Amino acid sequence: MVDAIVERVWKAASIRMVGDGISAGDLFAAQREVNRWEQWYPFWAKRGDEYEALGREAVARGRRLSAGELFWQACMAYHYAQFVWFHDPPTRDAGQRRKVELYREAAPFFDPPAERFDLPFDGFTIPGYLRVPRGGAGRAPVVVLLGGLESTKEESYLFENLCLRRGMATCAFDGPGQGEMYFQVKLRGDFNRFTSAVVDWLATRPEVDTGRLGVLGRSLGGFYAVQSAAHDPRFTACVAWGVLYDLSYYDDMHEPTRSGFAFVAGYDDPAKASSYLKQTVNLAGQAERVRGAVYALHGGQDDLIPPAQVDRLREALRQNPDVIFDMPRDGDHCCHNLYHVVRPRMADWLAERLGARV
Amino acid sequence: MVDAIVERVWKAASIRMVGDGISAGDLFAAQREVNRWEQWYPFWAKRGDEYEALGREAVARGRRLSAGELFWQACMAYHYAQFVWFHDPPTRDAGQRRKVELYREAAPFFDPPAERFDLPFDGFTIPGYLRVPRGGAGRAPVVVLLGGLESTKEESYLFENLCLRRGMATCAFDGPGQGEMYFQVKLRGDFNRFTSAVVDWLATRPEVDTGRLGVLGRSLGGFYAVQSAAHDPRFTACVAWGVLYDLSYYDDMHEPTRSGFAFVAGYDDPAKASSYLKQTVNLAGQAERVRGAVYALHGGQDDLIPPAQVDRLREALRQNPDVIFDMPRDGDHCCHNLYHVVRPRMADWLAERLGARV
Repeated sequence: MVDAIVERVWKAASIRMVGDGISAGDLFAAQREVNRWEQWYPFWAKRGDEYEALGREAVARGRRLSAGELFWQACMAYHYAQFVWFHDPPTRDAGQRRKVELYREAAPFFDPPAERFDLPFDGFTIPGYLRVPRGGAGRAPVVVLLGGLESTKEESYLFENLCLRRGMATCAFDGPGQGEMYFQVKLRGDFNRFTSAVVDWLATRPEVDTGRLGVLGRSLGGFYAVQSAAHDPRFTACVAWGVLYDLSYYDDMHEPTRSGFAFVAGYDDPAKASSYLKQTVNLAGQAERVRGAVYALHGGQDDLIPPAQVDRLREALRQNPDVIFDMPRDGDHCCHNLYHVVRPRMADWLAERLGARV
Repeated sequence: MVDAIVERVWKAASIRMVGDGISAGDLFAAQREVNRWEQWYPFWAKRGDEYEALGREAVARGRRLSAGELFWQACMAYHYAQFVWFHDPPTRDAGQRRKVELYREAAPFFDPPAERFDLPFDGFTIPGYLRVPRGGAGRAPVVVLLGGLESTKEESYLFENLCLRRGMATCAFDGPGQGEMYFQVKLRGDFNRFTSAVVDWLATRPEVDTGRLGVLGRSLGGFYAVQSAAHDPRFTACVAWGVLYDLSYYDDMHEPTRSGFAFVAGYDDPAKASSYLKQTVNLAGQAERVRGAVYALHGGQDDLIPPAQVDRLREALRQNPDVIFDMPRDGDHCCHNLYHVVRPRMADWLAERLGARV
């Protein structure tokens, strides 16, 4: 017998986990061995430690490509260990820090490597990674990648590879409430200012061309992406990988997502967080301002974000001449169950809008 | 309720299918929808047709990278539709032909592309694909990739990518009893002659250096790889991705594998095929002749090939100074459940032995 939360997490995340890089072998092993929620974190943390050891062995043997992949496997195992572990903040924080360290170890071994940056802004330090495609002639177009509620810059790796293969540079960072930034600043209403600070920095980098600039955000990041494009006209292409217009439905949200929003906003009680979240996460008066092209992907079977959210975004964008709503009928939340089809499709659209190759 | 054969196929192949490129979304959908064996082929054939349509759409839009991946998804869906469908030869043959056509459509869109060859030999035509890494300086080392009982050249794509990233060219072909060749010639005792004919052709190609030549075979292909290296001293590195020394255990084999061996040998009855198979698939007197380095991977939990097979190969290779037996304790058949770890590891070993990068 599997307890209710394990069952819900499997239902919501099994396919997504494989799409983000967890091996099917580990997934099936976990589905056999993890029956109670308290077994979840230890299972994945142990896997993470094992991959880390294999990564160190690969480094010792000079196997650079494998070292990068193994540290990244370790990172993903810790990512999923802690991703919705909101009920136990010290453990979640420890897992988050392990994940961050492991990605730092992996980054120089990636092909192309991921260059770490730590950007001072408003008294905070924005952490992120820049990857530039190899062998391009001239400056590469660049896509800024945003995580969501519990997805962070480290989870972008496979999507980055889709962009890089198409000749686009990628820049993933954690904003307020996300990943490493959570330890500095919680979810707040001006995520777009952090995005723009990152773009200011990108504009100083000779490898990339911020005249051909895109932004993509996933789940809650779909809100951040539209907000960022609304306030920064340098974004000529914007992808909402999952639509989120506002949190008017917050009080009806399932656990552990509901607690998760409170957590990243710095509240220990969803009921207390409700009015802050509804006020802060809202595209009203913002989405209308997007001048760049928009691609919004939303699954017809998304059971986390209700379809009314899509209607609101569509209405707000009705004056924008270059908007695509891609709504696969069988798609689940963020169409994770169609990852092998929709992720390349979003990368193709970005490449076309930014003048890269498809 | 799921019938016995569906249950056995899921148990044996679920993880392998994802490791070979089937999406977790499709796997979980199939596990929900396919309960009876007669639903298996139609489920995957329908998926194959859908991916083919998406591939054509991508071609029409000039999305070359996506076109390649989508046709290949279609190919893999047809591959797994027919892979152990031995009880119904006309349907299996039709699925095999669809798979072959779909790979031909995908091949020019791959990055790097796969170049088709059709090599005359002994009155037959050996079909295969050559892929050469981009941007290398000089001739690339080259790895010849062999399928097994039901795995074929089309299933090598992801392993090819591991080799190509390490600067090695890849050459995958179907030998007697495999894939397209099955329609010309059934399983026989001189697979190695077909391998050597392919190497003769590779030696004429200016892009590759047959002075740095490896061979890797999977499952039954582990037998073919060792046999090929035994008879052709040009192979300086040989990987048995799963050990198979002989078929002395044939009569105790589970279905559908037992019927599968009879099928590819051209028999309609396993009992009648038994003595031919035992005589034909046997490394005795051959394995001792391998002069190149050998890497043998075998899962400690392999429930298809018994451990005595490993002992026999180890004994036959005892005079060879460069032999590694990699036997992960938790590994299943061909260590498919550890695909994300062992496949890069085999590619690293090949790269090291052939002087490519790791």
